[in-house]
Amino acid sequence: MYITENTGNLGLIKNKFKEKVMNGKGRVTIPTDMDVIEGTKELAKKWGADAVRDCDGTDFPEELKDEGLKVYSTYYTTRKDNAWAKANPDEIQQLYVMTPRYTATEEMLKVNLMKGLYPDMLTPNSRDDIKRWWEVIDRTTGEVVPVNEWSYDESTTTVEVNTVKFHEYTVSFLAYIMWDPVHMYNAVVNDWKDVEHQITFDVRQPKTHAFTMTRLRKFIEDHPYVNVLRFTTFFHQFTLIFDEMARERYVDWYGYSASVSPYILEQFEKEAGYSFRPEFIIDQGYYNNQYRIPSKEFSDFQAFQRREVAKIAKEMVDICHECGKEAMMFLGDHWIGTEPFMDEFKSIGLDAVVGSVGNGCTLRLISDIEGVKYTEGRFLPYFFPDTFHEGGNPVKEAKENWVTARRAILRKPIDRIGYGGYLKLAMQFPDFVDYVESVCDEFRVLYDNIKGCKAHSLKRVAVLNCWGKMRAWGNHMVHHALYQKQNYSYYGIIEALSGAPFDVKFISFEDILKDKNILSGIDVIINVGDADTAHGGGEYWTNPDIITAVTEFVYNGGGFIGVGEPSAHQANGRFFQLANILGVEEERGFTLGYDKYNWEEHKHFILEDVTKEIDFGEGKKNIYALEGTDILVQREKEVQLAVNSFGKGRSVYISGLKYSFENSRLLYRAIMWSAGAETELKRWFSSNYNVEVHAYLNSGKYCVVNNTYEPQTTTVYKGDGSSFELKMDANRIIWYEI
Amino acid sequence: MYITENTGNLGLIKNKFKEKVMNGKGRVTIPTDMDVIEGTKELAKKWGADAVRDCDGTDFPEELKDEGLKVYSTYYTTRKDNAWAKANPDEIQQLYVMTPRYTATEEMLKVNLMKGLYPDMLTPNSRDDIKRWWEVIDRTTGEVVPVNEWSYDESTTTVEVNTVKFHEYTVSFLAYIMWDPVHMYNAVVNDWKDVEHQITFDVRQPKTHAFTMTRLRKFIEDHPYVNVLRFTTFFHQFTLIFDEMARERYVDWYGYSASVSPYILEQFEKEAGYSFRPEFIIDQGYYNNQYRIPSKEFSDFQAFQRREVAKIAKEMVDICHECGKEAMMFLGDHWIGTEPFMDEFKSIGLDAVVGSVGNGCTLRLISDIEGVKYTEGRFLPYFFPDTFHEGGNPVKEAKENWVTARRAILRKPIDRIGYGGYLKLAMQFPDFVDYVESVCDEFRVLYDNIKGCKAHSLKRVAVLNCWGKMRAWGNHMVHHALYQKQNYSYYGIIEALSGAPFDVKFISFEDILKDKNILSGIDVIINVGDADTAHGGGEYWTNPDIITAVTEFVYNGGGFIGVGEPSAHQANGRFFQLANILGVEEERGFTLGYDKYNWEEHKHFILEDVTKEIDFGEGKKNIYALEGTDILVQREKEVQLAVNSFGKGRSVYISGLKYSFENSRLLYRAIMWSAGAETELKRWFSSNYNVEVHAYLNSGKYCVVNNTYEPQTTTVYKGDGSSFELKMDANRIIWYEI
Repeated sequence: MYITENTGNLGLIKNKFKEKVMNGKGRVTIPTDMDVIEGTKELAKKWGADAVRDCDGTDFPEELKDEGLKVYSTYYTTRKDNAWAKANPDEIQQLYVMTPRYTATEEMLKVNLMKGLYPDMLTPNSRDDIKRWWEVIDRTTGEVVPVNEWSYDESTTTVEVNTVKFHEYTVSFLAYIMWDPVHMYNAVVNDWKDVEHQITFDVRQPKTHAFTMTRLRKFIEDHPYVNVLRFTTFFHQFTLIFDEMARERYVDWYGYSASVSPYILEQFEKEAGYSFRPEFIIDQGYYNNQYRIPSKEFSDFQAFQRREVAKIAKEMVDICHECGKEAMMFLGDHWIGTEPFMDEFKSIGLDAVVGSVGNGCTLRLISDIEGVKYTEGRFLPYFFPDTFHEGGNPVKEAKENWVTARRAILRKPIDRIGYGGYLKLAMQFPDFVDYVESVCDEFRVLYDNIKGCKAHSLKRVAVLNCWGKMRAWGNHMVHHALYQKQNYSYYGIIEALSGAPFDVKFISFEDILKDKNILSGIDVIINVGDADTAHGGGEYWTNPDIITAVTEFVYNGGGFIGVGEPSAHQANGRFFQLANILGVEEERGFTLGYDKYNWEEHKHFILEDVTKEIDFGEGKKNIYALEGTDILVQREKEVQLAVNSFGKGRSVYISGLKYSFENSRLLYRAIMWSAGAETELKRWFSSNYNVEVHAYLNSGKYCVVNNTYEPQTTTVYKGDGSSFELKMDANRIIWYEI
Repeated sequence: MYITENTGNLGLIKNKFKEKVMNGKGRVTIPTDMDVIEGTKELAKKWGADAVRDCDGTDFPEELKDEGLKVYSTYYTTRKDNAWAKANPDEIQQLYVMTPRYTATEEMLKVNLMKGLYPDMLTPNSRDDIKRWWEVIDRTTGEVVPVNEWSYDESTTTVEVNTVKFHEYTVSFLAYIMWDPVHMYNAVVNDWKDVEHQITFDVRQPKTHAFTMTRLRKFIEDHPYVNVLRFTTFFHQFTLIFDEMARERYVDWYGYSASVSPYILEQFEKEAGYSFRPEFIIDQGYYNNQYRIPSKEFSDFQAFQRREVAKIAKEMVDICHECGKEAMMFLGDHWIGTEPFMDEFKSIGLDAVVGSVGNGCTLRLISDIEGVKYTEGRFLPYFFPDTFHEGGNPVKEAKENWVTARRAILRKPIDRIGYGGYLKLAMQFPDFVDYVESVCDEFRVLYDNIKGCKAHSLKRVAVLNCWGKMRAWGNHMVHHALYQKQNYSYYGIIEALSGAPFDVKFISFEDILKDKNILSGIDVIINVGDADTAHGGGEYWTNPDIITAVTEFVYNGGGFIGVGEPSAHQANGRFFQLANILGVEEERGFTLGYDKYNWEEHKHFILEDVTKEIDFGEGKKNIYALEGTDILVQREKEVQLAVNSFGKGRSVYISGLKYSFENSRLLYRAIMWSAGAETELKRWFSSNYNVEVHAYLNSGKYCVVNNTYEPQTTTVYKGDGSSFELKMDANRIIWYEI
């Protein structure tokens, strides 16, 4: 992802953007370069592109300035000016790092702070008062080591600690970011030689703040042909650290660890009204990653950062507007504090957001953003030699990406699509060029058909976790769209939802505590994740207000779908706190003495489209059903899928669900069943789960879409329940009037 | 197991036991019956039996009284006298039961106490003050409902509770045991018709206490031919409850729930110095089963019970001795409070303990008992029609049982073996009769060879958990020797140890807290189990005294073997609190941001006898290795087996280990390696893991034993490292002089 956000020199070509969009064309951005002037013109025409962008190591050719193409230019807010950074070393950005844990085997322990870290990237900050901003912690007891019990030798970057023998210790310290992590990544991956390390400066601090506004104005002045400043991004990089071997050591696409400095933290202290501790950020070495149930202090800090980032980002956006430019934000890299689903975001006043599209979830991460004029998705593959080489199959990759994203676009469209990389490479693959033409056309048709419409939703679904809208669509994500063995079985649920005909909300436990009426507008609550993670909810499930709100919701007819270890936290004789609703519980040894007679599998509405053994992904072990629960699938006496009734409501337990079309259908049916709406299933519905139907009632249109790379046959059900048979080509989308 | 402890009428035949043991014979007990007088004589001669016993539905034939056979008679301390029970209903035994959990959907909740319980077995005790001895608990908050907020209607056995809507409630109550659970089990399983339900009376209470001593004297008087009173058992049945359909509902072979009464609890209160609460026994419905980390209150209660049980049991044993009889305890049924490895046991003064042998662990459960004159193991199969029918293969079952138990006998022998059931049935299987003859002879030979000797141990191993010696060999056991999907991968370790050449101790965390020098006599610590169970240790691992004691132990050269989720409890940035020693950690989502590069598998000493894919049983998911750890086996990036060095010590992580000869060897090597004793491996050692070598240095003998049902070839290594090749017949044991 982030590799693509680095550009080479920007061309200094002047250009004037013309507002007109080619007839029936537009909504597409393409990359360009000095050596593909004719190619750019040709492809812009063929694909109907109305905007060009600079890319990693490409320049904008002057010859294109009068082609009527809008010009985007990447703008780096925090780097590419080492002179400034070196002149203002106190305003270089900082990162909180925790050393590895060391076991004291003597009464004194020496900890070299730089062990495990890439030496050129970070330098411990001993300029500020280390006794205030650093913390040595006895991790065996969890207690802070008094500051007079340790000292720091700057020459060896070593902390000496007086210890209790055989206790474990860590040092939490601030380090200056002497090499921007994204710049470093690009340099390492692309094997750039002799490149000067770009230092990251901190726009939040006073001198750099002032400098930045001037610098932005100058950049605009120097690049009059640019129509859109594409900020990559604002001020704080997500957490990204490299080890001695320059390998990625730690990454968190949502991480706040690199958004700190004494300057910022002192402001935070003032606002919060309590003393800051490094541990608020370090979090035992877990760095408040999104699996952690957020502490009050970390939530306070995030809110503070969002407000402060929004303030300064708005200044920059205002300058763009003042200069007649649009401001676009790249959703990634230095995006910390700009979470687009949070209230502060709108106040920035951005014109647009662009982001990379890896799947349906990352599409919705962009398309669900409100408060901007347009959103844009960057599609795969990038025109890079890794795909575009002899024997490569870029069409395959493009198809997978498009068809995966299209499901989500049909629910909530982005306004534009685009590509990146070396256009010249793409041109060597005529079938790819033809395929992208079809994608662009297809996108424009669908956009015209559904623009301004809300896709018809069968039910309202709320995903309940500790983060709510702050991590909407990106919950279970560690690094942008990357697979983890521990997340794909849960992520599968979210990906399925991203393209399903349901109105999906993400709500948090705090939302319920603030106002339990939030549940009244919901048909089905989904709780997905492992015990004691922020996705599961952990201790929140011992809060009687949460329990009674959810129990009442289900009792009165609501649906509840639990995936993995829903509502799990060991307390009061239960691990699954909602075992009474779910009808299942996890055997942790404590209930082995209870005989379990309920193992029979039942046929069920939810299973009616299942064609083969269900792939629950990693699934879960040790789940058993309580009396009265209907097991749909158990394997070796471990329940994978079960349903239960509770009052007027219903619940479904799923051990995990790898994303697939067949599994999406299973979830679809689970939602309809849990909402008590089996009879409503065959409305805007395809009998074949490889094909989906989306209706747009206020535009009077609906479409049928084949999500596979093979032809499909299906029965299509319309809103009144009437149906017709349909044969569809691979990947095809067909539009109908209602 | 317990089915076999019920007898029919005892024969009233007088007999006199003669002390003489037949030359080269003896050490064997067989069952007899009226219709197998000649058969008994014949088999007693053939098998060299020197004792006979009554059995389920068998009588002792008078004709045998002068055969020189010792006569055992089962004695039931707590039942088989309904007249007494009915005349003293206040002294019928009681049980603490918790109702299922009920969700309040109105402001009042009616709970029928008998829901889920077999009506003839239990009757709620409202004779005593229910407001004192019962407890209604809001399980949503964990709080006790004030006694004025609920009432009881005896006619409907229903408690009415004023509730908070959508909270969950339970009622903890005392119930009289109106049908002895073992008697009921036998009646149900054997489909006995019109049998009067035997009521369980409480010997701990004053009237029944006095009555019991008289009753025992009378029994002895009435059965002069009996030499050994085989108590089945003393006063409190392990927890065993049946549901409405007379199916087992809850069982805990170690359970204390049926050892209560207001009389006992008031005594306990006095001793403990604090108020008793039903919740001490109910434990959120988990009933303090052995997976639960024992609370202080429950530990106090157990200690109190052990002392009180020992006191009264001693009275009964004294009467036996006074009357010239031996007192033998059956290890099972009403054995609660007599834990034979605890200090109080010896004070009872028993002559013998007999128990059922299901495997190596249950053998050691008997043979490791100290403070009695002899121990006896009952072997399988029982001479019952389920095995002894046309087409049945009792020899196969006998071989499996004998060979499995023999491994453990060779480490620590029982003093006698025996069989049960209908002798007549066994006689119809001549090959079985021959096989048992060979077993009896083999047992006597090995007993003569190793009697009074300590089997040579290569290393001293301590299994560390919350129970220590109280659950030695029976840790991970829910019901006597029964399989559980959740325990076999851990039990496999204990079973392997039961026959391995190591000196095995079971120690508790409290033992370490009392005296950390306990570790100084140990070579290798083993911690086996799941997180937050009593086997794992849970919160004990956050106690700095525990952590430093174990860390110091390993650092100075000790071995540590962790199986499953060793040292696991989420705290201070770790799940595995000894991750620094083990070199592995469990991914619970919180460290997904950390890149993990250590996945390579290494060859290792521990793996050198592995012939096929290792069967880790259920294994564990999500385990990853820290830097520097050597992974021996990982599957799909989940570590199953890894080793690490720490100071002078070493650790081994195993995800689980199903019991097998091959896995036993793996554990054997893991112990030797973790103790730094690779070079000592080939001492009293067989190259083939199906064959084992046991040495008895003070008797100057050693044996080589083929544990399989096939011939084996091996190289046998003697104590000086010299070796010879050996071909062995199936099951063969060969004795050598050193």
